[in-house]
This record gives sequence, structure tokens and C-alpha cells, in this order.
Amino acid sequence: MTAPSPSNDEPELRRDPIAGRWVILAPERGRRPARPKEAAPEPSREPCPFCPGNERMTPPEVMAVRAAGTSPNGPGWTTRVIPNKFAALTPGGRAEEVREEIYERMDGVGDHEVIVESPEHDKELSELPVERIAEVLAVARDRVRALCQEPRTRYALVFKNYGAWAGASQEHSHTQILSVPVIPSAAAEELAGARARFEASGRCAFCEIVEHEVREERRLVAVEDGYVALAPYAPRFAYETWILPRRHAASFESVGQDEIGPLAHLLRETLGRMARALDRPCYNFLIHSAPCREPSLPWYHWHVEIIPKLSLASGFEWGTGAYINPTPPEEAARRLREFERVAPS
Amino acid sequence: MTAPSPSNDEPELRRDPIAGRWVILAPERGRRPARPKEAAPEPSREPCPFCPGNERMTPPEVMAVRAAGTSPNGPGWTTRVIPNKFAALTPGGRAEEVREEIYERMDGVGDHEVIVESPEHDKELSELPVERIAEVLAVARDRVRALCQEPRTRYALVFKNYGAWAGASQEHSHTQILSVPVIPSAAAEELAGARARFEASGRCAFCEIVEHEVREERRLVAVEDGYVALAPYAPRFAYETWILPRRHAASFESVGQDEIGPLAHLLRETLGRMARALDRPCYNFLIHSAPCREPSLPWYHWHVEIIPKLSLASGFEWGTGAYINPTPPEEAARRLREFERVAPS
Repeated sequence: MTAPSPSNDEPELRRDPIAGRWVILAPERGRRPARPKEAAPEPSREPCPFCPGNERMTPPEVMAVRAAGTSPNGPGWTTRVIPNKFAALTPGGRAEEVREEIYERMDGVGDHEVIVESPEHDKELSELPVERIAEVLAVARDRVRALCQEPRTRYALVFKNYGAWAGASQEHSHTQILSVPVIPSAAAEELAGARARFEASGRCAFCEIVEHEVREERRLVAVEDGYVALAPYAPRFAYETWILPRRHAASFESVGQDEIGPLAHLLRETLGRMARALDRPCYNFLIHSAPCREPSLPWYHWHVEIIPKLSLASGFEWGTGAYINPTPPEEAARRLREFERVAPS
Repeated sequence: MTAPSPSNDEPELRRDPIAGRWVILAPERGRRPARPKEAAPEPSREPCPFCPGNERMTPPEVMAVRAAGTSPNGPGWTTRVIPNKFAALTPGGRAEEVREEIYERMDGVGDHEVIVESPEHDKELSELPVERIAEVLAVARDRVRALCQEPRTRYALVFKNYGAWAGASQEHSHTQILSVPVIPSAAAEELAGARARFEASGRCAFCEIVEHEVREERRLVAVEDGYVALAPYAPRFAYETWILPRRHAASFESVGQDEIGPLAHLLRETLGRMARALDRPCYNFLIHSAPCREPSLPWYHWHVEIIPKLSLASGFEWGTGAYINPTPPEEAARRLREFERVAPS
């Protein structure tokens, strides 16, 4: 390990080396009066549309992993994919920018799917057995592959909202996929930043970071066959943790079946450590991947970003695109390393 | 008014003409199960550090508007500016990027101030008389002017967090200013977008938008001497409303004393309409302004962005930098126009 970071309690500005955004690491902010932890919502009295037996409450399923002999849109599944009933985008329409007065718009064409991760209403993703998490990830990959076949789809995001502070409106654990006919700005910036670094150094910047962090150790959270979980150098949120494949690969679509198991293992391990260290926080995870049909970009490297929501973004974040984070990543990684995951797998 | 927007219930993608970010207008999302409204937090039992009589609980005041004969750091003030006790940045250190391993960092130098808007603990900004709001805005402008004198300061943001969903940790109504030694990415993107449009058309894009929207009317919320309040074409959040000066001016620093009164009036009017239409929502406001010491950029135009927080950002927003908004701006503006503000000024 090299010399330690100047990590006294003085605030520090760090720039994400790829996305370029600034983060203010401000340990003093951790001492301000704590907001009450987001209370668990009242358990809903409405029947849950994601529970077995209620399949008719959702649009017809896109696919499901189900026991032999069971019928679509009935019980018997372990992972079930459905169109989002309250879809942000719909499959019909034209994916072309058109002029509207002095502005530009496009029909809201795209797909918005929900992956119900388990028939059990009260199991969080990290509480499922590793084989079941692998099933969910394989289904997500297969759906991204399928959605990316559509020529109008330029980008697909796999994401999860857990808990109210993370924007979830359903309690029953689920992941979502949105496919869009544009490259959204955060993805475009990350792609451009990674490309600029590649052009300067001839190497994938993510590959460089993985190598560096594995050698450096102090921001590492856990390592698994072929993957690392680490606290990024300039994390937006306290305890933000990324999982990256050690082998260069631009796209989540291209992950092979033999690579899914170790990923599931490390995701379970990381989420479990967070649940224990942070008392089951609300969180989002996002799978950043290359645009559709670009599986072999040499400068991009797919990865998972897990962002616990221990506090909410304020006007400063919305106004500047910079972030204030009270927990330096070296400290976050150290604490996550100290905790064992909740239960052995 | 020209032909109406294709505002049936189909989703639509719109791009912000200056910042470039995509927004998905998805009316269908408005129909999903509502989350319970964020409950008002338990009134704190701790003494409030922003209340008169408790001045010694905060760092010594930077300035205050106070009655003749009263002493600094005692009662008698109407608006009081203090350094943030839990500052994200501190005045000491070097504002220079330095290499740290494969990354770049900078000392966390800057200023973080709090403007306590009123001695009254339970008055929200929009409930103050217009003269008092004008006093708060004039103080904010004066502090930005002073902070921008510091050569290391490149950008200053005035922002307000009201309510827990907006990231507030103090109940007593206050505004904040953060000055930073970098141009944060969202500001940089907006500046670059505005400059590109200026170079293409020879005109300030914000001036064009103001003219267009005043003529077009359907996204207007209210108009006041020298200012307009409008729903932007591609709003990130439901009921997002901007206030822009009609006269071109790049910087909030340059606002003259005679321009503060009408701004206070329109801010009060707009916040009052929101409070009534949306049942006193959590909200942020941000004053977007040119970088420090650049008061006469021809392509930039300062403005206020008010963003109610009726729902929280989800993994999709964090992952893509695009936004899903269930309320088209034409509908938001119409509803806000229908409501009178809470009380006559």
C-alpha cells in the first residue's frame, strides 16, 4: 500500500476520473443533527400485484422461470418479468427527434419492464440464496439482450429501487429495465470520459482503476472470482460501492453463463455487508453498460453501482451536479470489510 | 397561441434546449399507487440554533440586518448570515488540483454560509411579507458578491432546501450559499449549451425562451414587472418552475436594488401558488448564475429554478441523468395559474 490519503477531517474535493463530476468529501457534515431514519412504510393493505396468485393484477408476463407444468400468468414461478403497468415509455411511436416550436421532442418510445425477483413478498434481494440471485441476473441479461435487438433502442438500464428514499413504490422486491431511444446524458458523459482517457493512454480506464485498487487495497470491499467490489475514489453518496468485472468487457449483455454465478455471489456479499453495517438502508443499484449493440468497445467497461440512500440529495446537488458526501471511501470500505454478510449462503 | 402540443396521454421525450438532458414525460406514471406524503417530522425538542436568543449556538455571524442599537450575535435581527456549523467546505487550503495516485484531488476550500430568513421559527419563506423576502434576496446577492471577490472562488450557488424530501435537516426556514473553487459539471454543461446556442444564433438562448414563452402563454405561471415565472419545456420534476429576468443579465450578482422588489414579489407569488396547489410540498430552489466575476457573458442568463419534491429520484435518474416526470409542464402551469397565492401580500 502507498502513502495514506490526507484523510484527516479536512474536507477534500475529488473528481471522478471518468465521469468528471466533483465530489466534496466533508467529514464534518457527518456530525450534523441526524434526520430520523426513514420509517418503514405501513404495510400496504392492498393485495400485492407481485405476489403469486395475483398474477392477473399485472400485464401478461413477458417471460418467467417457472416449474414444469405451470401456466403463464399463474403461480409456480421463481422469477417473473412483466411490462411495468405504469410504464414511463411505450413500445409504439416514432423514435425521431422532431421540432416543436423552438424545442425538440420525440415520441416516448421504449420498454419498461419489471423483474419480480422472488415469489416471497418480504425477502430482500440479498436475502435470497445465491442461485436465485444468479437467476435474476441471468434474466436481466437476457431481457437486455432481447430489448437491445430492437433497432430503435439505443440504451438499456437495469436498475433497482429498494425502499422509499430510493424511489420505490412497491414493497415486494423487484428490479426494473428501461430501454430508451437516446443515449442519456450521464451515460454519454461517462462514455466520452472513458473514451478520452483511452485515447490518451491506450488503456481502458476502468481496467486501470481495477488494477490500481486491487493493488492499493484500502478502497476494496470484497473480491470474488473475476470481480471486485470497491468504494470508488469520488463517491457521490456515503458507502457507494461498485462491482466491476476484472476482465475487460464493455457490455452486461455479453456476460457468459459461467460469469453470472460469481457476480451473484459478490452482489449478495456486498448487499449483505451494507444491510448489516448500515441497518438495512434504502438503496439503488444500476448496471452501467455500453449502448446497445456495441459489445466490444475497447474503452468502456460495464459495472454495477450500488448507492445506499442514507440521506437525500439537496439543492446543492440538483443545482451543480456535484455531491457532498460525509464518508470518505477509504472509511466506507474499511467499515464494510469489517462486517460479515448477514447469513452464510 | 400556436397549435397545442401533442398532449394526449402518450409519453413523450423532451430535451432541455440548453442543458441537453432528456426528460420522459409519462402521464401514466401519475396513476401509480401514491406513496404516503412525507410526514412532517416530529418537532425537534432540541433548542433551535436559528431562533433569536440562541445566537451563541451558531458560529459568529457574518452579517445581519438588525435593529439599531442591537449587538451582533444577540437578538434584534430580521435576516442573519452565519457560517454553516457543519460546513461542506472550509476557507483554508490550496485551491489547486493535485495528483493522488491515478486520481486528482483538491483541498476542500470554499465557503458555506446559512442565511436565516426570519426570526420566526415556523414561518416558511413564502409566508413572509414581500419586503422581508426582498431583504433575504438582497442579502443573498450581497453575500454572493462578497464571496466572489475571493480569487479562488469560481462559482457560488444560492440554494434552499425546504422539508425532509428536499434534504433539509433544520426546520427553521433558511437559505444556503456554497462557493467552490471549480465550475461544477451541471453549471459547466449549462454554460456550454448556452454558449453553443449563442454561437449558432447570435442570441442568448434564455432570452429567446423568455420571449417565446411570453408569446406562447401555455407554460406561463405568472408575470411580474421585469420577470416571468414559467414551467420549462423539459422539466425534471413535476411542477418545476423557473423565474427568469426578462432583461438579459448573466449574473445574480449584478441585480440592482430596484430589481429585487419585483423578484421577491414573483418568488412569493410562485411559492405561494405551489404551497396551495400542492399542499405545502417539500422543495428546493437554486439560483443559477454565471461563474464569479463574469457578470457580462452575452450567452448566459441567470435564473431561479424551483423544484418541488413530490416524489424522490429513483435508480433510473441516478443511472442516466434523464428524468421521468408524470406532469407535463403545460398541465403544471395551468394548475398553478388556477390557484391564487395563500394570502395577500
